[in-house]
Amino acid sequence: MTRSAEFLASHARALHADQVEIWPTSGHPAVFAAWKHAPGKPTLLIYGHHDVQPVDPNDQWVSQPFEASVRDGRLYARGSVDDKGQVFMHLKAVESLLAQSQRLPINISLIVEGEEEVGSDHLMRLFREHAHELQADCVCVSDTDMFGPGIPSITVAMRGLAYFELRVQTAAGDLHSGSFGGAVPNAANMLCKILASLQDATGKVAIEGFYNDVLPVSPQLRDEIAKLPFNAAVFREQSGGATEFGEQPFNTLERLWTRPSCDINGITSGFQGAGPKTVIPNAACAKVSFRLVANQAPQRVEALLRKHVERVCPEGVRFELAAYHSALPYRAPTEQKVYELARGALARAFGRPALYVGEGGSIPFVPEISNATGTPVLLLGFGLPDGNSHAPNEWISLECFSKGIESLVNLYQDLAHLDATRRR
Amino acid sequence: MTRSAEFLASHARALHADQVEIWPTSGHPAVFAAWKHAPGKPTLLIYGHHDVQPVDPNDQWVSQPFEASVRDGRLYARGSVDDKGQVFMHLKAVESLLAQSQRLPINISLIVEGEEEVGSDHLMRLFREHAHELQADCVCVSDTDMFGPGIPSITVAMRGLAYFELRVQTAAGDLHSGSFGGAVPNAANMLCKILASLQDATGKVAIEGFYNDVLPVSPQLRDEIAKLPFNAAVFREQSGGATEFGEQPFNTLERLWTRPSCDINGITSGFQGAGPKTVIPNAACAKVSFRLVANQAPQRVEALLRKHVERVCPEGVRFELAAYHSALPYRAPTEQKVYELARGALARAFGRPALYVGEGGSIPFVPEISNATGTPVLLLGFGLPDGNSHAPNEWISLECFSKGIESLVNLYQDLAHLDATRRR
Repeated sequence: MTRSAEFLASHARALHADQVEIWPTSGHPAVFAAWKHAPGKPTLLIYGHHDVQPVDPNDQWVSQPFEASVRDGRLYARGSVDDKGQVFMHLKAVESLLAQSQRLPINISLIVEGEEEVGSDHLMRLFREHAHELQADCVCVSDTDMFGPGIPSITVAMRGLAYFELRVQTAAGDLHSGSFGGAVPNAANMLCKILASLQDATGKVAIEGFYNDVLPVSPQLRDEIAKLPFNAAVFREQSGGATEFGEQPFNTLERLWTRPSCDINGITSGFQGAGPKTVIPNAACAKVSFRLVANQAPQRVEALLRKHVERVCPEGVRFELAAYHSALPYRAPTEQKVYELARGALARAFGRPALYVGEGGSIPFVPEISNATGTPVLLLGFGLPDGNSHAPNEWISLECFSKGIESLVNLYQDLAHLDATRRR
Repeated sequence: MTRSAEFLASHARALHADQVEIWPTSGHPAVFAAWKHAPGKPTLLIYGHHDVQPVDPNDQWVSQPFEASVRDGRLYARGSVDDKGQVFMHLKAVESLLAQSQRLPINISLIVEGEEEVGSDHLMRLFREHAHELQADCVCVSDTDMFGPGIPSITVAMRGLAYFELRVQTAAGDLHSGSFGGAVPNAANMLCKILASLQDATGKVAIEGFYNDVLPVSPQLRDEIAKLPFNAAVFREQSGGATEFGEQPFNTLERLWTRPSCDINGITSGFQGAGPKTVIPNAACAKVSFRLVANQAPQRVEALLRKHVERVCPEGVRFELAAYHSALPYRAPTEQKVYELARGALARAFGRPALYVGEGGSIPFVPEISNATGTPVLLLGFGLPDGNSHAPNEWISLECFSKGIESLVNLYQDLAHLDATRRR
C-alpha cells in the first residue's frame, strides 16, 4: 500500500500538481493532490481508491493479477477497473488537458484512499482534518459500472442499509414437544410470526411509518429507467433462476434502485441436524436487513422496527434487537446543472445519450462525502457489469477506458463554464 | 438383554406360568408368559419392557445404577420405574394371588419387550406372529406416571405425532442483497411466511380441515381434568420460566392432553455466523411437527399440510415436504366397564379416588397394540413425575410400589366379574 501511494504521488507530481501529499492513517495511506491554478473557476474533487480486493483464487487468473495483460480489447489486472484504472483515467484526462493547453480549465483536487475495500474506516476523519484542502464545488467518483457496453451511465440513486440481529427467547432451555407442545410459546414459531409480519405478500414492508421518509420516484427518473434495455432473461440468469418478485406497481429496476427492501439474511433455531428431534426451541435468532432509499435514515428505521416488534411480540416472549452497521442512501440532486453538464460530456465522447442508472447496493462514503462537503457526488463509472471487479480476471474495456478519459476531459472543460452563483 | 430376558422367564416359571417363552428378534428378545387356567374368564394381557435407558452420566449416580438402593422411601436403580420395576409389580401381584388361593381369578398373559427405548421396532411383528397367544380382552400397560404423590391415575389420552421437514428454494445460489434485494424472493422470508401461516396468534393450527378429525373433549374429561391439582408455579418452573400460552378457551392440561399442537423444531437458512452478511438465502429449511389427538391420522395431516403449503407458497418458490416418523394418538374408551373397574381397584388401594390424566407425548405402540388386539389399553402407571426415568438416580416410591401391587391384585380380582358379553 505504501508503494502504491508513493507511485500515485509521484505520478501526480509528474503532472505538475501544486500540492501532493501522502496522508497516513492507522490503516492504509491516502494520497492527496491538487491543481489549483484556475482562480475564480469551480473546484472538482475526484475521489478514488488505490487498494484492491485479494486476488485469490490465484489459479483462476489467466494472466498474472499484478501485470497488465491486453486481450480482445480488454485490459486484465487486479484493480484495472476497481479502482486503480478509473483513478488513472482521471490522471490521464488531466495529462491530456495539460499537454493541450499547459493549464487546467478548473481547479482539481484528488483524494485516493487506501481502505475502500475494508470499510473506508479513516476517510471521514481525513475529510474532517483536511476540510479546507477538500473543499469543492462538486465531487466526482469513478468507481461504478455503466449499465452495459456502449451505454454511458451516471449513477443517481444508491440504496442505504440498516442491518439488525433479532433474538427471541421464551424459556431457559429447550423443552420436549410432548411435554409442553401447545402450552408454551415456541421461540422459532414466534420469531417466524414476527418476521412474517415485517412484509406483505408482495414484499412491501409492513412496518408502520417505514415509507414516511421515502422520496417518491420522480416521473423523470421513471422515464429514465424505462429507457434502459433491461433484459429479463439476463436478470434471471444472473439471479440463479430467481423469479422477478417484489413491491407493486414497480418493475425490477425501480425496485432495486428506488424502493427499500427487507431481507432475512439468516435465521437459526432449534435442531438442525439430520432427522427428527421433538424439541421446542427456547431461543431463535435472525439477521434482518433493510436496503434504504433517500431520505430514510438507519436510526429512524431502527426505532420503527423496535416499535413494530414490541407491538407484535406476544406476551411471554422476550426479544433483543441489536443494530449492526448501516449506510445512508443517496439520491443525486439531478436538478443541479452539473448533471446536465456530465450527461453532455459523456454523450459527446460515447456518441450516445448518457442514461441515469441506480445502484441497489450501498457505498456508505458517497452520502457521507456529499454531507461532509455539502456538494453533489457525481458517480461517473466506466466499468461493465461482468468486469469481475472482485473476482479473478478483473478487466476494463479499452474502449470504455479511452472514451471515459475523453468524457472526463469534456467534463473538466464544461465545468469551467459553471456559473459560480448557480453551482449549488 | 439376554440375561435380563432369562431372568424374567425363570421368574415367571417359578410363578407356575403354564407357558413361558423367550421370543428372539433381530434386535433384543421379548419374554412371553401365560397363566391360562381360568376358563370362561377374561384374559388380561400385560405389556412391559425390560430394556432401560443408558446410565450415563455415570458419576451423577449416588448409588450404583444396577444395584437396588433404598433411601428415604425410594428404591433407586436404573429401570426401577421405567419399566422393570413396574413389570415386577405385576409379577408380585400374580405371586400374591397365587399364594392366597393357588389360582388366578382371570387368565393372564405377559409380553415384556426388549426394545421400547429404541423404538419397539419388532413389537408389531410379534403381535402379528403370535396373534393367538396375545389375544386378550384387555391390555394393561404400566409404564406411565401418576399425576402426583398419592394421586392414583389412569392415562386416558395420549397424543400422536406427525413430523416433517419443509425445504424451500428460490434460486440456484445465495444472492447479494444489494444487487437483488426487493426484486427476487428470499427463501428465508418465504419460509417464515409459510410457517407463520400454519397457526393463528394463539397457536391454533390454521390449516384448513386440520381439526375435522379431532375428537371433542367430552364434558366428562374436562371435569376430570378440572379435578387435578394443577400447579401453575410448578409448571412454570418445569418449563424453564415459559409463560402458559395456547389455544383458547383451553387450559394448560387440556391443551397438552386433548388438543393438537404445531411446533417448529428447528429452522435454518442463510448466514449464521457472528456479525452481518448481506446475503439473500436461496434455500431455507425447517423441521415442523404436530402433536395429534384422536382421531387424527398422520397421513391425513400430511395431505392437509401439503395442500396448505401448495396454496400459500408464492410463485417462484419451490418447496419439498418430507415426512419423518409418526405416531397415532390414543383416546381410551372410558365408557367401557374395565375403566370403572380399574378406578375402583386403584381407589381401594390408595384410599383416594383415581383420576383420569393425559399424556402430551406419544407412545406409538399403545394405539398400535389397541388396534392389533382390538381391545382397550389400560394405562395404569405408578411412577412419579420427578422419578428421573431417563436420568441418573432413577427411583420408584416404595409406597407407590406396594399400593400399586395392591391395586393390581384388586384389578385382577375385579376383572373376573367382567361379564364376557359386556367386555367390549
